[in-house]
Parts: sequence; structure tokens; C-alpha cells
Amino acid sequence: MTTWLPTLTTETPEEGYELAVKLSRVAVKMTQPDAAIREKLRPEYAESFDALIASSQIVATHFATVAAANGYWRETS
Amino acid sequence: MTTWLPTLTTETPEEGYELAVKLSRVAVKMTQPDAAIREKLRPEYAESFDALIASSQIVATHFATVAAANGYWRETS
Amino acid sequence: MTTWLPTLTTETPEEGYELAVKLSRVAVKMTQPDAAIREKLRPEYAESFDALIASSQIVATHFATVAAANGYWRETS
Amino acid sequence: MTTWLPTLTTETPEEGYELAVKLSRVAVKMTQPDAAIREKLRPEYAESFDALIASSQIVATHFATVAAANGYWRETS
Amino acid sequence: MTTWLPTLTTETPEEGYELAVKLSRVAVKMTQPDAAIREKLRPEYAESFDALIASSQIVATHFATVAAANGYWRETS
Amino acid sequence: MTTWLPTLTTETPEEGYELAVKLSRVAVKMTQPDAAIREKLRPEYAESFDALIASSQIVATHFATVAAANGYWRETS
Repeated sequence: MTTWLPTLTTETPEEGYELAVKLSRVAVKMTQPDAAIREKLRPEYAESFDALIASSQIVATHFATVAAANGYWRETS
Repeated sequence: MTTWLPTLTTETPEEGYELAVKLSRVAVKMTQPDAAIREKLRPEYAESFDALIASSQIVATHFATVAAANGYWRETS
Repeated sequence: MTTWLPTLTTETPEEGYELAVKLSRVAVKMTQPDAAIREKLRPEYAESFDALIASSQIVATHFATVAAANGYWRETS
Repeated sequence: MTTWLPTLTTETPEEGYELAVKLSRVAVKMTQPDAAIREKLRPEYAESFDALIASSQIVATHFATVAAANGYWRETS
Repeated sequence: MTTWLPTLTTETPEEGYELAVKLSRVAVKMTQPDAAIREKLRPEYAESFDALIASSQIVATHFATVAAANGYWRETS
Repeated sequence: MTTWLPTLTTETPEEGYELAVKLSRVAVKMTQPDAAIREKLRPEYAESFDALIASSQIVATHFATVAAANGYWRETS
């Protein structure tokens, strides 16, 4: 069975950051499952710095979780 | 006795994310128990990207809790 | 001597969530101790999805604290 | 030498919550040291549910810190 | 070589709080390095309770970090 | 293979803070990959204290992660 989130473990911090971005986007889809409405809202969103900043805060929260899950990739450096 | 929240433990990260979404929704119900008012507010909410983003932040906060509760599903990967 | 917050320990996750809701409400009372003013503000609040969402974020923050205090109720499941 | 914050340790969770409220208020004073301006702003603030909710979020963040500092008062219950 | 942030360790909780305030201010300077623009914005900021509250939230987030870095000053009390 | 985020480990707290600023900026680029649109939005952003404060909150969240990853640089002081 496929899943969009098989694990929080990533090879590198950069992949961990990309996973945090993905985790941020999924909540929007779950709250507004209608893709047509999401598309209608997207332009307003993508050209608003407020929205960009708010999204960055969500990414930061998820990145904290993913980083902890990976022991902060301490062996990677 | 049934409960809407028997445990924070989930089998997979994906189920943990779904639990985080559920935890986010319950607070709205507890703050505004009147379903009729909630329904009246929902359209405004579902078509507002600001509201979608704010909801995503709440999901992110709960997901951090659920992920910690599950030891980040480290054995799952 | 009675206290509104004798402990952060709860039997179940659900009771922990209810405690998080209670912790959220107390701050409002402490910031605005005048019950008459709070009552005047409540309608505006209860019918605003923005306010509902903001409240949910506070509940999420407190739930993280209560869940950690209870070791995430890991034996409960 | 006196200090407004000698310790994060409190006897009970309730005292810990009161300390969190105090920690929230100090930042406002440090950012706007002019008491006259703060007083001018206070009415607008105290009668705005948005402001009350935002304050509650700050209290929640500080309470998480104070609770961790006290090992969640696990012996208190 | 001098640095504005040699350590997160402080003698007391109060000094830790002052460090949290300092950490909050640095981000503003890094995002808007032009002092003239910052000065132009400051009046609007200092007399807005919304801005004061938002700043307090940032202080709270940094204080959580500084407190953890200092083991919550548990020996201080 | 180069990466923008090879590690969360930094020599000093100050470098850790700079990494937190960098982590904050990347999310904006990932959400709005079109540099022309970002440039169009930047003036509005850089001269708004609200935006500066919101950015500072994101930096604070990332700094918490970076500080934890570095064991709070406890040997540095």
C-alpha cells in the first residue's frame, strides 16, 4: 500500500526541509479537498507576501519535527 | 466507554498526520459547540486561503506532538 | 486550599485535551478580569472563524505541554 | 540584588501559570518602556478579543517553558 | 573576534530573558538592514499593541530556547 | 553534489542564528519560485513592520531547531 508519508527519516537536512514543505502542503489539501477551489485561491495566495510568510512559519514548525526525528542529522556534517 | 481520542499512538506517520488534523478540528467544536453557527461560518472559512493556512499551522503543532508521542515512528522506515 | 490547576496529569488523552482547552481559557480571564467586558466581546468572538482558529492554535500549544507532562499516555493505548 | 525573575521553579502548576502570565507581560514593557504610551494603548487592547487571544498564545508558549522547567510538577498530583 | 552572540548561557533567568529580547531584535535588523527605514517604521510599531504583542510572542519563543540551553537555571533558585 | 543545507551544525551561536535566517528565507523561495514575483513583493514586505515581525517569528522557530541540533553550543562559552 502506497502512502504519501512512509517515514520522517531522510538522508540529509536538505531532504528533511523538502519533507517539511510537503507536510505543510498536505494540510491545505485536507482542509479544502476541492482542487477547483484551491486553484481559484492560489493566485491570491502566491502573490501575497503575508501568505508566503505564514507558509514559511508552517514549514519551520514541521522542519523542527523532522529535524528531531532525524536526530538533527548530526552524523551528516 | 467510547472516546474520540483513545491514544496518541498510531501505526504510521500518515495515520499520525490524520490524527493531527482531527485534533485540530476538535478545538473548533469545543469553542463553538453550536453546529449551526459553525456551518454558517464554514463557507467563508473554506474559501479563504488565510484560514487554510492558519489551520495548517495548527495541524503542524499537533503533528509535532503526535510525532513525539510515537518516537517519530523511527522503526517504520 | 482549592486550585483550578492541581496537576497536569490526566488519566487519558481526551482528559488531557480538555485540560488544554481549560488552560487556554484561563489566560483570557487573567488578561481581561472584567466578566462584563468579556461577555460583551464573546458574540463577536464565537461567530468569527478567525477567532475560533486562533483559539485552536492556543489549545494545540497547551496540548503539547499536557501531552509531554503525561509521557504521551503511552501505556493507555 | 532584587530581580523580577529569580527562578522558573514554582511550587504548583497554578503558580507556574501565573509566572507564565508575568513573563508575557514583561516583553510588552521592554518593547515599549514608556508607561504613558502603554496606558494609552491598553483600552484598545483590553476590549479586543483578538488581542486577548494573542496574549493567550504568548502565555501558552511561556507556560510550556515553565512546565518543562518544573518537570511538569509530576510529584504534585 | 567580537560577536553579538558568544553564548546562550546566562547567569540568571532574568539575564536569559534579556538575551531572548536581544535575539528577537536581531532578526528585524537582518531582514531590513537599512536603519533609516527601520527608524521610519518604529513609531507605527511602538504605538501599536498588535506589534507589541507580536514581539512578545517572538521573545517567548526565544526564551524557550535560552531556558532550555541553561537547563532552566534549576540550580539558581 | 552541492546542497544549500549540508548540516545543522555550526561553530558558534551567531553562525547558528545566521543559519536560522537562511532557513527562513528558503521557504519563501519554495512557495513562490518565480523570482520576478518575489521581487515585486519585496518592497511592500521590507517596509512593513508586520512583515518584519512575522519574519522574526520564523527565525525564532528555526533558531530553536538549530540550537537544539548544536546542543546549545554549551562548550562554546
